[in-house]
Amino acid sequence: MVGAGGLLTVQQALQLALQAAVVMDAEDVLLEQAAGLRLATDLLVPQDLPAADRAMMDGFAVAERAAVADSEPAPSPVAVFAVVETVTAGMVPQRVLECGQAARIMTGALVPTGARCVVPVERTSLPADDGGAVERVSVPLEFLKAQSHILSAGSLARRGDVLLPAGTQIRAQHIALLAEHGFARIPVHRRVEAAVLATGNELVHHSETPPPGCIRNSNAPMLQAQLAAVGAVPRMLRTAGDSLESLRRQIQLGLRADVLLLTGGVSAGILDLVPQVLREEGVQQILHGVRMKPGKPLFVGVLRQSGRQCLVFGLPGNPVSSLACFELFVRPVLERMGGRTSLTALRAVLTRNFTVRGDRTVCQPVQLRLSEGHLTAEPLAWNSSADLKSASDANGMAIFESERGEYGAGEMVQVISWDGWG
Amino acid sequence: MVGAGGLLTVQQALQLALQAAVVMDAEDVLLEQAAGLRLATDLLVPQDLPAADRAMMDGFAVAERAAVADSEPAPSPVAVFAVVETVTAGMVPQRVLECGQAARIMTGALVPTGARCVVPVERTSLPADDGGAVERVSVPLEFLKAQSHILSAGSLARRGDVLLPAGTQIRAQHIALLAEHGFARIPVHRRVEAAVLATGNELVHHSETPPPGCIRNSNAPMLQAQLAAVGAVPRMLRTAGDSLESLRRQIQLGLRADVLLLTGGVSAGILDLVPQVLREEGVQQILHGVRMKPGKPLFVGVLRQSGRQCLVFGLPGNPVSSLACFELFVRPVLERMGGRTSLTALRAVLTRNFTVRGDRTVCQPVQLRLSEGHLTAEPLAWNSSADLKSASDANGMAIFESERGEYGAGEMVQVISWDGWG
Repeated sequence: MVGAGGLLTVQQALQLALQAAVVMDAEDVLLEQAAGLRLATDLLVPQDLPAADRAMMDGFAVAERAAVADSEPAPSPVAVFAVVETVTAGMVPQRVLECGQAARIMTGALVPTGARCVVPVERTSLPADDGGAVERVSVPLEFLKAQSHILSAGSLARRGDVLLPAGTQIRAQHIALLAEHGFARIPVHRRVEAAVLATGNELVHHSETPPPGCIRNSNAPMLQAQLAAVGAVPRMLRTAGDSLESLRRQIQLGLRADVLLLTGGVSAGILDLVPQVLREEGVQQILHGVRMKPGKPLFVGVLRQSGRQCLVFGLPGNPVSSLACFELFVRPVLERMGGRTSLTALRAVLTRNFTVRGDRTVCQPVQLRLSEGHLTAEPLAWNSSADLKSASDANGMAIFESERGEYGAGEMVQVISWDGWG
Repeated sequence: MVGAGGLLTVQQALQLALQAAVVMDAEDVLLEQAAGLRLATDLLVPQDLPAADRAMMDGFAVAERAAVADSEPAPSPVAVFAVVETVTAGMVPQRVLECGQAARIMTGALVPTGARCVVPVERTSLPADDGGAVERVSVPLEFLKAQSHILSAGSLARRGDVLLPAGTQIRAQHIALLAEHGFARIPVHRRVEAAVLATGNELVHHSETPPPGCIRNSNAPMLQAQLAAVGAVPRMLRTAGDSLESLRRQIQLGLRADVLLLTGGVSAGILDLVPQVLREEGVQQILHGVRMKPGKPLFVGVLRQSGRQCLVFGLPGNPVSSLACFELFVRPVLERMGGRTSLTALRAVLTRNFTVRGDRTVCQPVQLRLSEGHLTAEPLAWNSSADLKSASDANGMAIFESERGEYGAGEMVQVISWDGWG
């Protein structure tokens, strides 16, 4: 789709990658295991909630007050009720309340038939001479408002209404809501399986001491953590050396996943064999090369085969380049695959001037802060795409366009949070 | 610590709870399993990085240029080097470069001794007549800057420097950095084990159809998700009925954890036996009752026994109250126990007027949004602490003080993000 010479902009590259993404199938999972996943369909309210009137406070459910006899003097400021029952949560009231009767009642308990309202216990007084089987309670008239402190049947949710729409990312509050309505399993887009394949003769496992000329593989464990953070399932492959056979074997394994992340082996070096092997395995190139720094050698392709597909990202080998390409391109694609429908660009206020050098868009590690209602971005000193130390002080990136050249403190810039803000 | 009558403010209650928190022991975990945990000690750089000079680009490592013979005419704008070797990443250079010599080199490869700089391949030209064993490369003089495109030994990190300080919460970028420096296991504060115990005769499992008067247990799966989101390990206990024996058995189990979260059974109802059982089991009350809405009946206590302790939170039974108390009190305590040292209050701009009714601090579900550099809080209509549906549209809470009464649109208010922003 792209000529070999011209480099795409970051926006063009992102659009191409997103267009190639396919939303994952729906599957039913246990509610307790759904955190972070997205609903694949609307969920409707199965039954009115609450099913019947419930008390919202500890107190007394009271019926209409008894008729006042004509012979009584001035109207009393309180009504007195005979307490005929105690209703606790979980039990069914045994009595229908009649005029002048009340039931002691606990929060959440069913309100007896005949009750006009619930009066909180702190609004009532129990006569001092009260004792034995028949209790009495006095309530000032002002607290006898019809339906007060009653959670009436159907007031929380009506059968057939949309409880949660498709696309909702399930969080603790949704789990509570769905549990309340009796959803034991819910339909969500399944997790993306993402294979991670590091390439390069120079790589050793991070627990080893590298011989001269070699370095530890830092990208694979980083990508593993990035994938887990976005809810994907990482499948870690054995590192492939710079030989066609070694690469082909591991790439074939990786292409069985929904996504294959390669790190290293995609720039123009003579041993960068990855694009060749991908081509031979039937992967169609979507893009190769983005006008950005770091991350210029990014490769994106797709294998479409027997009704399924694997999206392939060839990430640069330098750690910060790999980190940046993941956050800029892979994360939004994974979110789209997981059922996220909207992409919101995050913007922050720059805390100091920044000069873009060169003709590529710069992804600069920044410290994002939320302070007094503002999101600010502090560009960090950062020496090269090998400089993980500076990048590890960051919690996001700012995107500086090369056309702009100079950015001033106080300007708004596009940013990406590595912690999922926004 | 608190009189039975007076209610604490939210701030007082939070301070008391935090004071009772004890930071978890350190333990070594595999680097790949450390995401989200916090370093228990400073980690120092074990060896200079890189160990030796490395090429930052694909190109040529070139030595000093050969002396120009007096007999030559005008100084040439290019220098020509004899290519004596190819060095790829992972291999050790075999030759020491002498004047007029160069080595073809790949990104990340060791720079041969005698090299003055690395010249990117796109800055060079290979003579057309070049062929056979001895290759030659021409480099314009302007690209012969000493040390350019060389990542020199020790330039990324110096042995003994602090690589990451104690308290760092491990994210993907830290995992990459630590892998690069060879940390296979790292010392972190261990995860908090938190038992969850729902109480109440009226509760049935959320997969069941509740008989009349009963409701599904929504708090337990919600708390499970909230605990997991903050990195704690939930231990789900069997629901306890409203009997002393049932409560005592489950509470004894729960007190073996680092934290015990009880939900339900802490208000003033006649069947609210939880405080009694806790007292009998040796739990000292820290506070009971907070001047807030929802969440007034919150109980916090501690069991100190044989050199260990269990912090006990009695959360109200209403789902939104329980949610709010977790986010306001339990989450900061768990973070403190996990080694977080600073608590930062988050503030947002209110999008519309809000009136506080009553004399308690109001925790109102809000929709937090990050838009154009601003964090805004939109208070949601919310009917009661049983109204999970409205709360499930929220992603945070705003804290409104009762003394203030009226809040205006555009004002700054304290907020809490349920998604970990800030």
